[in-house]
Amino acid sequence: MSADDPIDRRPPNADGTDRKPKERRKKLKAKIRELEAEIAETRGKAAEEEPLYGLTPRVEAAVVRALAQERAAVIPRLLRPLHPADQADLIERLDAGQRSSLFAALGAAFNPEILSYLDETVREEVVDLLGEEQITSFLPEMDSDDAIELIGELDEEEQARILKALPAKDRVMLEEGLTFPEDSAGRLMQREMVVVPTHWTVGQTIDFLRTFNDLPDDFYDIFVVDPAHRPVGELALSRLLRSKRPMRVSDIMHRDFRKIPAAMDQEEVALLFRQYGLVAAPVVSEDDRLLGVITVDDVVDVIHEEAEEDIMRLGGVGEIDLYGSSWDTAKARFPWLVVNLATAIAASMVIGAFDATIEKVVALAVLMPLVASMGGNAGTQTLTVAVRALATRDLTARNAAKFVAKETLVGSLNGLAFAALVAATSMVWFGDLHIAWIIALAMVINLVVAGLVGTLIPLGLDRFNIDPAVASGVFLTTVTDVVGFFTFLGLATLILL
Amino acid sequence: MSADDPIDRRPPNADGTDRKPKERRKKLKAKIRELEAEIAETRGKAAEEEPLYGLTPRVEAAVVRALAQERAAVIPRLLRPLHPADQADLIERLDAGQRSSLFAALGAAFNPEILSYLDETVREEVVDLLGEEQITSFLPEMDSDDAIELIGELDEEEQARILKALPAKDRVMLEEGLTFPEDSAGRLMQREMVVVPTHWTVGQTIDFLRTFNDLPDDFYDIFVVDPAHRPVGELALSRLLRSKRPMRVSDIMHRDFRKIPAAMDQEEVALLFRQYGLVAAPVVSEDDRLLGVITVDDVVDVIHEEAEEDIMRLGGVGEIDLYGSSWDTAKARFPWLVVNLATAIAASMVIGAFDATIEKVVALAVLMPLVASMGGNAGTQTLTVAVRALATRDLTARNAAKFVAKETLVGSLNGLAFAALVAATSMVWFGDLHIAWIIALAMVINLVVAGLVGTLIPLGLDRFNIDPAVASGVFLTTVTDVVGFFTFLGLATLILL
Repeated sequence: MSADDPIDRRPPNADGTDRKPKERRKKLKAKIRELEAEIAETRGKAAEEEPLYGLTPRVEAAVVRALAQERAAVIPRLLRPLHPADQADLIERLDAGQRSSLFAALGAAFNPEILSYLDETVREEVVDLLGEEQITSFLPEMDSDDAIELIGELDEEEQARILKALPAKDRVMLEEGLTFPEDSAGRLMQREMVVVPTHWTVGQTIDFLRTFNDLPDDFYDIFVVDPAHRPVGELALSRLLRSKRPMRVSDIMHRDFRKIPAAMDQEEVALLFRQYGLVAAPVVSEDDRLLGVITVDDVVDVIHEEAEEDIMRLGGVGEIDLYGSSWDTAKARFPWLVVNLATAIAASMVIGAFDATIEKVVALAVLMPLVASMGGNAGTQTLTVAVRALATRDLTARNAAKFVAKETLVGSLNGLAFAALVAATSMVWFGDLHIAWIIALAMVINLVVAGLVGTLIPLGLDRFNIDPAVASGVFLTTVTDVVGFFTFLGLATLILL
Repeated sequence: MSADDPIDRRPPNADGTDRKPKERRKKLKAKIRELEAEIAETRGKAAEEEPLYGLTPRVEAAVVRALAQERAAVIPRLLRPLHPADQADLIERLDAGQRSSLFAALGAAFNPEILSYLDETVREEVVDLLGEEQITSFLPEMDSDDAIELIGELDEEEQARILKALPAKDRVMLEEGLTFPEDSAGRLMQREMVVVPTHWTVGQTIDFLRTFNDLPDDFYDIFVVDPAHRPVGELALSRLLRSKRPMRVSDIMHRDFRKIPAAMDQEEVALLFRQYGLVAAPVVSEDDRLLGVITVDDVVDVIHEEAEEDIMRLGGVGEIDLYGSSWDTAKARFPWLVVNLATAIAASMVIGAFDATIEKVVALAVLMPLVASMGGNAGTQTLTVAVRALATRDLTARNAAKFVAKETLVGSLNGLAFAALVAATSMVWFGDLHIAWIIALAMVINLVVAGLVGTLIPLGLDRFNIDPAVASGVFLTTVTDVVGFFTFLGLATLILL
């Protein structure tokens, strides 16, 4: 295709020639055919390349090209065949300028479903681009959980204005949803569900499903409630379908199901779903009334987010910041590095206490990072296992003592192995038996300490309800650095001077 | 309750007294009442404490006590009310001795479903305890995916013997399943599913479901296939239920669904489910024939496992090893520590090259860990984001250049900030302006390098199809240590000597 603007925007006669309207129409039509061919080719090739993902490199490049060339009319046609999740990915990948052109080009063709697939940082920006009026018009169309998530991210004034503009029914539903704490089951649940009373028969239930219009799009379970709207049974559709019409739902329903309190943290909800392989679970209020349902597909995102959070925290990053600006990212990472600087200075002070020793035996300065670094790495291994085992409830107060004992033993075993290795290395390097003995001893001590501290720190933080993923690493390396330098240089001072 | 053995095992008259059979029966009955009260109390209190999890501390303690006191008869009664997932947790927490007593006590009361909930290390041990004969009898009862997973973990000889002993139908199914690569969609899928031809009506389908006995326990979607058994549509049960009997399934089925090739890696499957919020997806052979179905609850475990794998690899641990022995754990962690030792020695050699400088200015030895440590931490932040973004496909070849540029800029920004901080610290400490300038310059250089290398290493490993989580950390800290020590000590040699 040609690189010039496909839609001729020159006013008639702008270049001084006498261009006839017919000629211009013909030119435009030719351009349109060309573009349509391009779109068809883009889609065809895309399908060949990666048939399972809609957003292929080709589609992305075509959108970026159309934005650069200000061919606004092509944008909705390029986006329409994409799944909202793929459209969200595309929006995330654009820079701020491209994003606002894209929204200008899309206009009413913007699919509100995209919002629930967007990364939080990008969603905030998109919400600003769309404006309050459009957000207000989208909310009633969205699933209740997505709508509450969206409005929950706005500031209080915006929330109040938007809620006021909504129809009463939607407003009440959203206001009620916002009363649940963030990241709780109450926020995660969907209010759209099918509920029947215990005395109904299979036939009544099926007839109800066939005639009632305001049902959720897709559902897998029906909940059976008593007159006080307390859930007493769960009924899988496959079970309903296979039962005879005169049967009562109370005779075929599953009575042994798990009810989730609305205030439960979403991490806990995810653990329950994973533990028991649940597909759907009813959410209940404090007085046991049925409020909504959480299905396993909502939990998939929670599991992903919670694991992601642990990874990021262990790596010293607050949250994944792929789409933030360099300045925001640097600012967000700064506090963690300050903490690290403080602990590194503590380690330096330990070295400083032994400067007289180092001045006499400079080999110590060369070897000292070995002990500290091995302690840090061995401790991190232990710590990683502890943090995850705590998160998945595999490690609890009940087996903590056993775990600490085991990790300390593992530290001793590897401590002995690496004591031998570093002693040999330092003998070859400096030929000094004293130094070899000193580094070997320091290594054993530091690796035992690493095993002990790598378990005790996360267990201690967890006891005080602090997420062990967020702070363990810094405490650990402080201890292994300080102990590493202190034992090595301290032993050297005792033995060599 | 009393701590002594509740069931009197003394032979009559063993202590010389003449004990009457009636008296003994009475004693036994009293003991049984006591035990039943204990069990009831255990359950009641358990329900109060943590009603959502079956395996409460109380139940666990009761089982451990019963095992210690060799009261074998109580074990099955304590375990029966627990969900198989909770029974699996209990088995994982026991030590090897307790575990074998438990199996002896359980006997035929062992529920094969427990096997699919066990951690791999523990499952291997349990499979040995159960023996080939019992495993062979369990396999036909299990879901196809669980059965294939179980047999896939055995060695080839065992596999062959067990397969030979199975009924032909089960054998063929398992043999076929084993032909798919480990961790592929073919291993993850269930073969139990409901399939109907395109020409069927809603009425025919419902009648089929009501009369056909060999259906899966629970299912949410029906697949519609053409005569060559290629999937052409997906039909949610909720849709089927709401449609009139004479409608054709081909008119109401969903045609726009995603087919998963049987060879696809499970990580890719999980990404697809998460991306598009899928609930179920058909798995097809190379010639597009329907082989089975993957449902979102299978994917929950995969998402968890894949994130866990990344966390463990970033922490330098092969896999979570909570249930391995100390010896096995130490052995498994050894290779990673050897790699770390090698890189630490490389860093020491850099220091060694400047020993003459350190001998003259011992303050350098005190300050040098600061530069290396800050570089390592800043690099780890970048690396963590890169590794996760690669795993979730948010970072690809398409936006790699932008990401590298951003992270390098972030490194420069924080480099300047920390240069100022460490320069001030070293001025206060050593009062030497030259050293302050040297450490500031080294800090900026090392943090820029950390940002650059923290992105380039994972991107490079990914390009060569090596999991960036597994090896990035070691490369990174080698670079930041070597660059940190080299620039700091090198600049000092140039300027101070």
